[in-house]
Amino acid sequence: MQENQKKCLELANRIYDLDAKVYECVGSSLGRTFTGNRENTVQNLCMLMLAKPNGHLLRSELALIGNMARTIQDKEARGQMLTEYDSILKEIEQLPDSFGKVDIVDLSRARLNPTAGKLSEKDHLVICISRTQGSAGNDIGFELADELHINYYDVEIFNQVLNRLEAEKGSVNDAEAEHFADFDKYRKRSFRLKTWLREFNRYHGLPRQDAVFFNMSDLICNLARTEDCVIMGRCADAILANNHIPHISLFISAPFSLRIQRTMASKNMELRQASRFLKQMDRQHKKYYDFYTGSRWGRPESYDLCINSANYGIRETIDLIERMIDQKRK
Amino acid sequence: MQENQKKCLELANRIYDLDAKVYECVGSSLGRTFTGNRENTVQNLCMLMLAKPNGHLLRSELALIGNMARTIQDKEARGQMLTEYDSILKEIEQLPDSFGKVDIVDLSRARLNPTAGKLSEKDHLVICISRTQGSAGNDIGFELADELHINYYDVEIFNQVLNRLEAEKGSVNDAEAEHFADFDKYRKRSFRLKTWLREFNRYHGLPRQDAVFFNMSDLICNLARTEDCVIMGRCADAILANNHIPHISLFISAPFSLRIQRTMASKNMELRQASRFLKQMDRQHKKYYDFYTGSRWGRPESYDLCINSANYGIRETIDLIERMIDQKRK
Repeated sequence: MQENQKKCLELANRIYDLDAKVYECVGSSLGRTFTGNRENTVQNLCMLMLAKPNGHLLRSELALIGNMARTIQDKEARGQMLTEYDSILKEIEQLPDSFGKVDIVDLSRARLNPTAGKLSEKDHLVICISRTQGSAGNDIGFELADELHINYYDVEIFNQVLNRLEAEKGSVNDAEAEHFADFDKYRKRSFRLKTWLREFNRYHGLPRQDAVFFNMSDLICNLARTEDCVIMGRCADAILANNHIPHISLFISAPFSLRIQRTMASKNMELRQASRFLKQMDRQHKKYYDFYTGSRWGRPESYDLCINSANYGIRETIDLIERMIDQKRK
Repeated sequence: MQENQKKCLELANRIYDLDAKVYECVGSSLGRTFTGNRENTVQNLCMLMLAKPNGHLLRSELALIGNMARTIQDKEARGQMLTEYDSILKEIEQLPDSFGKVDIVDLSRARLNPTAGKLSEKDHLVICISRTQGSAGNDIGFELADELHINYYDVEIFNQVLNRLEAEKGSVNDAEAEHFADFDKYRKRSFRLKTWLREFNRYHGLPRQDAVFFNMSDLICNLARTEDCVIMGRCADAILANNHIPHISLFISAPFSLRIQRTMASKNMELRQASRFLKQMDRQHKKYYDFYTGSRWGRPESYDLCINSANYGIRETIDLIERMIDQKRK
């Protein structure tokens, strides 16, 4: 402790001197960072270094000196000042509780986050993309997968695959298979008691949507364990996190006004229709995600990264994601 | 139009053939993507290609074929299939309204977004960081600035600079200057009528906080026009966007439970105290941001990028930001 106090005193004096020298070189109209006398200032600086809760204030003081030092015109003087500045910074970082710095990290998650560089050779690159309707998330996911030469899965594909797996088990009757072949799978089906009863039996009493969710979860885990892929939606991020399978989780969104514009153009909708459609989809997405994950849909703390696609456009968003992945990959 | 229909018919036939060939090579238990006969399938595919609103369904069908093709064991056959797949994809992209693809881009913003690669030589690299309390946003911002050798500005520094600029104008009296020198600037001041009256005059009748905000805005614009820097908070992203000055806007957050843990460690707080503190800070940040920007604080659509620092840790978050910037820089 004595040792530590002596070190702080020495550093405080060096900071005071550096401030004086920088001021001398800059001649800034803003004056010195420390306007009090040496004794008071050094005492205050020591207090900041030793009292953890205010460490960030010390950092701001130093940053202000550093900012001024960078404006020094004379190259040699600037170099000298910045060298001393760096050296002080480094020594403060050696102190216990320097700047009150405490890391923030969810180790169980970070260990499974490939963009955090923790991926082993045998792990796969699995990119989970959640998105708001109209933010071009699907276009981005599809093209990203295509450029990375990895598989792409969205809700249509999952439904087809799940239907096939079921058909294999012989539990889908011919009428349904016929529908399927004729593309009527894209048509919404209305509620029928007969269908409901059949499904009740088929899914062992679980509501159909829950049964589908659990089948989907299995499928997603199997995929992520065996291949590189992009998975759109389906709460894949939460499913993989729960199963401790490495993945990247992205959320793609854009301001409502731009999503409306785009929806009007891509779906030939009127303004009011597009607005109603987007609001409804957002509600559905939120309900589904919140229900099955217990996290909050569309909140930055529920994903690794959220990207505002409107601030980049489709092409640049893909580039951005590739940059994030690339340098850590292989 | 005739021309277009003929092209679609040709592509639909090629897709049908590719599916058949891929199935032959894979022998997948999942069967073919298209289980109907050629005539029906081709007709349906043409419909998808010509009818814009369902373009994404066509893309999913193709992706499913592509996914299967990638599983073909025989290298030569796989290569052939994927070449044909790529060629079909490219030709569909040439079609008008292929896949119903419409870009999403806020041109006025994207043009000013350096990570979108639109920065000119004379523009500066200005990184605006908003963050939730306890997510280590300040540590990340400070170290990022230090590594990039650019200036760092946070609220403490802004307050000091603004105070000095005011002092220069002679409008701060000696008693205040004395306070300042003695580090009492860190102590909260209680409301006093005399102070209020003096401030009312000084700020031409504007509420003090609005006057401070406008001074701050000017300062931020000047900085961003003249130097590379990291700016913490202060709605800098919105201020710069309104003034058409290039910048990157980041939001750093982390799950509440991790922010609590970190706050307890860094500020020596009890659980309940930390929880109350974080909630209060979030409310204040939100109120300030929403009031001065008209955007919504902490929502992905209000920033370029949101980063969950807990999924990376401080070091990896900085690396991530540097990767995003680096490859577009110079």
